[in-house]
Amino acid sequence: MNGLLTDLYELTMAAGYFQAGKAAEVATFEFAIRRLPPNRNYVLAAGLPEAVDYLLNLSFTAEEIDYLRGLAQFARAPREFFDYLRDFRFTGDLFAVPEGTPLFAGEPLLTVRAPIIEAQLPETYLLSAVSFQTLVASKAARVVAAAEGRSVIEFGTRRAHTPEAGVLGARAAYLGGCAATSNALAGFRFSIPVAGTAGHSWVMSFACEDGAFRKLQSALGENAVQLLDTYDVAQAARRVAALGRPLWGVRIDSGDFLECSRQVRAILDEAGLQEARIMVSGDLDEYRIRELLAAGAPIDAFGVGTQISVSADAPSLSGVYKMVEMEIGGIKRYTAKYSDDKSTIPGAKQIFRDVARDVVARSGECGRGEALLRPVILGGRLVEPLPALEQARERARESVARLSPALRQLETTDPWPVIYSRELRALMEQTRANLMGTAPAS
Amino acid sequence: MNGLLTDLYELTMAAGYFQAGKAAEVATFEFAIRRLPPNRNYVLAAGLPEAVDYLLNLSFTAEEIDYLRGLAQFARAPREFFDYLRDFRFTGDLFAVPEGTPLFAGEPLLTVRAPIIEAQLPETYLLSAVSFQTLVASKAARVVAAAEGRSVIEFGTRRAHTPEAGVLGARAAYLGGCAATSNALAGFRFSIPVAGTAGHSWVMSFACEDGAFRKLQSALGENAVQLLDTYDVAQAARRVAALGRPLWGVRIDSGDFLECSRQVRAILDEAGLQEARIMVSGDLDEYRIRELLAAGAPIDAFGVGTQISVSADAPSLSGVYKMVEMEIGGIKRYTAKYSDDKSTIPGAKQIFRDVARDVVARSGECGRGEALLRPVILGGRLVEPLPALEQARERARESVARLSPALRQLETTDPWPVIYSRELRALMEQTRANLMGTAPAS
Repeated sequence: MNGLLTDLYELTMAAGYFQAGKAAEVATFEFAIRRLPPNRNYVLAAGLPEAVDYLLNLSFTAEEIDYLRGLAQFARAPREFFDYLRDFRFTGDLFAVPEGTPLFAGEPLLTVRAPIIEAQLPETYLLSAVSFQTLVASKAARVVAAAEGRSVIEFGTRRAHTPEAGVLGARAAYLGGCAATSNALAGFRFSIPVAGTAGHSWVMSFACEDGAFRKLQSALGENAVQLLDTYDVAQAARRVAALGRPLWGVRIDSGDFLECSRQVRAILDEAGLQEARIMVSGDLDEYRIRELLAAGAPIDAFGVGTQISVSADAPSLSGVYKMVEMEIGGIKRYTAKYSDDKSTIPGAKQIFRDVARDVVARSGECGRGEALLRPVILGGRLVEPLPALEQARERARESVARLSPALRQLETTDPWPVIYSRELRALMEQTRANLMGTAPAS
Repeated sequence: MNGLLTDLYELTMAAGYFQAGKAAEVATFEFAIRRLPPNRNYVLAAGLPEAVDYLLNLSFTAEEIDYLRGLAQFARAPREFFDYLRDFRFTGDLFAVPEGTPLFAGEPLLTVRAPIIEAQLPETYLLSAVSFQTLVASKAARVVAAAEGRSVIEFGTRRAHTPEAGVLGARAAYLGGCAATSNALAGFRFSIPVAGTAGHSWVMSFACEDGAFRKLQSALGENAVQLLDTYDVAQAARRVAALGRPLWGVRIDSGDFLECSRQVRAILDEAGLQEARIMVSGDLDEYRIRELLAAGAPIDAFGVGTQISVSADAPSLSGVYKMVEMEIGGIKRYTAKYSDDKSTIPGAKQIFRDVARDVVARSGECGRGEALLRPVILGGRLVEPLPALEQARERARESVARLSPALRQLETTDPWPVIYSRELRALMEQTRANLMGTAPAS
């Protein structure tokens, strides 16, 4: 399963490692965040279940192997390599930061340690699966913060990059603090609360708007959310007010939300419908929500789509998956690359988070505070069941609440201090001297 | 299959239509592009096979139906509605613009005509699947145009919003003109050429860079692409030059591409390796590629990831799926919404493209030029097999070549003229007068 869902070069490297007699060498790779995305003071780790599921089930079908055999790039690969793929399974270790943990630039999110081919192949899948959910959860947290306690409902599947991305995006958005999703499959699969009752087509399918409102109310009762902006918002609000209860409330999907919400609130209140809620949706992001609330708009819930589900202002994460050490017969060798502007840091690591800073240390070092990277898979087996989505969501809520107000605000600010331990710095210098043949940087 | 992969409100509306006795009414919905994304003079239609596959296979499992029954939103839905879902299949019609066709703001990309529930449910899935591939194909076409005949290889799966989106993104990028993809599953599934041989980890896994190059060459022969920027580009180039043939060429993944490519070209040429190619990759987009080529950089191929696979400068498409007409017992009623800034245009349509402009007309009108919307599914059955990916790619290439030079350039320009036929304008006026109770706009 999923064996080919990777970049071809992972597979050509695998064949190369095999041919070069390196298959038994053990490599450690690290998925780290090079820089924070624009407009972000932190990201929220998310997507670990998909990473785990992938590693535990990674395999190749006979047809996939035949496909590879037919490619020019594998013309020189020995038959034994394809036998190896046929029997492939991941036997290594995965260490990961729990979902819902805020992370900062330069920090590793997960570490894979396994025989080199097993550690190399997952690069592409892990980067994609984990980066995507991390981006969405991080964006959702910002939107939720801006809503100051009002519900944010994720509406983004139609803008997600494939419908399936909508399902996983809904999961990440809920982890980041959204109250519900419009995606029914996400509700089914992850037990996320689902929301949504009618679109403009409902109203348009009836000859008269009034009839549309009446029929929605009779079909949905106290769950009915009447959509007001198909023709004229104020007129629609008066129609809804005339119908009265039962009713959850109304939704406005276009126009000037401040003015419309005030007008609609007045119409509903005058009809004695004080408990009827007002939801707005359409082109919302965290800044627009903050602006509306600062202006005193009487809005109870926000429906947010595009901005959350594609993390529109930051649709990609600069995650890298880099080899940090090799072990051959118990002897370790530390690895790094020194490309312009894209250097990496050698050695397996741990992050220690205390009240004032994060220390990135060598794994095995003793440090103060919470150790963030924890064993998830050891020897190809899950150590213990992953925390449920609700727990991850709660971890996100609590950890974000503990961040400083400056880090929680929408504007970017001075970064949370992330420093390297003395031992890690020593390793960096030794490795550079070894690989680049220069004296240690002073 | 996939019945729940939609927004909940499609399903609550379905239950409402059912309860309101509207299940036999026939609705026509239209997927149109409201505005072009930023920096785009056109988009390339893509994603039709996923839309067709979805419509032909849309169904609900017993577990999915049980899930819906348990939701508060369906508490009032009659038992017969769930029986209806159990037997659901799409029996309607799909008209679509062929993949690889350039489209402009305000144009319909596809039309669905079916009993109202069947036409309503697909909204979310169709918007997501088609918008995503359309965005990626459109972005790829720009990058390919900037490369002026040099190969562009799509490297973006690791940045795609889920690994599966990487597979479909690879398809769309190929449709838009990319020469190959790094995604092995996309190669397997869609017969797209695949590329890629080694990453930095290959080099790092060997104690000496020289050994890494030697072993890659022996594993891959004339397919070997040596990656030069793990430590020092010039030194690496000299090592590759010393090894000589067989070799496809080299890749540079960081640094100043202009300077590095010149330096590397000189080293390779001096060693008599004139036919060895230079590929660059890393943070490339169409502007950067144009700049490099304008400066005369001796680059033979570009690897482009993030910018293509998430359409980074325009990660969402303002596609809408709106009801345009209803038929009850042979009598038609035209529908539109008149929300601020988000009005829609009533009636099923056709697009006629001739040499000077597009005319959006009522379906059934006679017009000049190519009629772009074609029947794909009629009565729930595929009319004929869809064009192969290669044909769609060729259609894209030919149609883009026929666009004016201004529309093909990277900067935005005056839009291609899209006008409404006299009949369509008359329908718009009548419908507005009917629905808004006002005199026709003059």
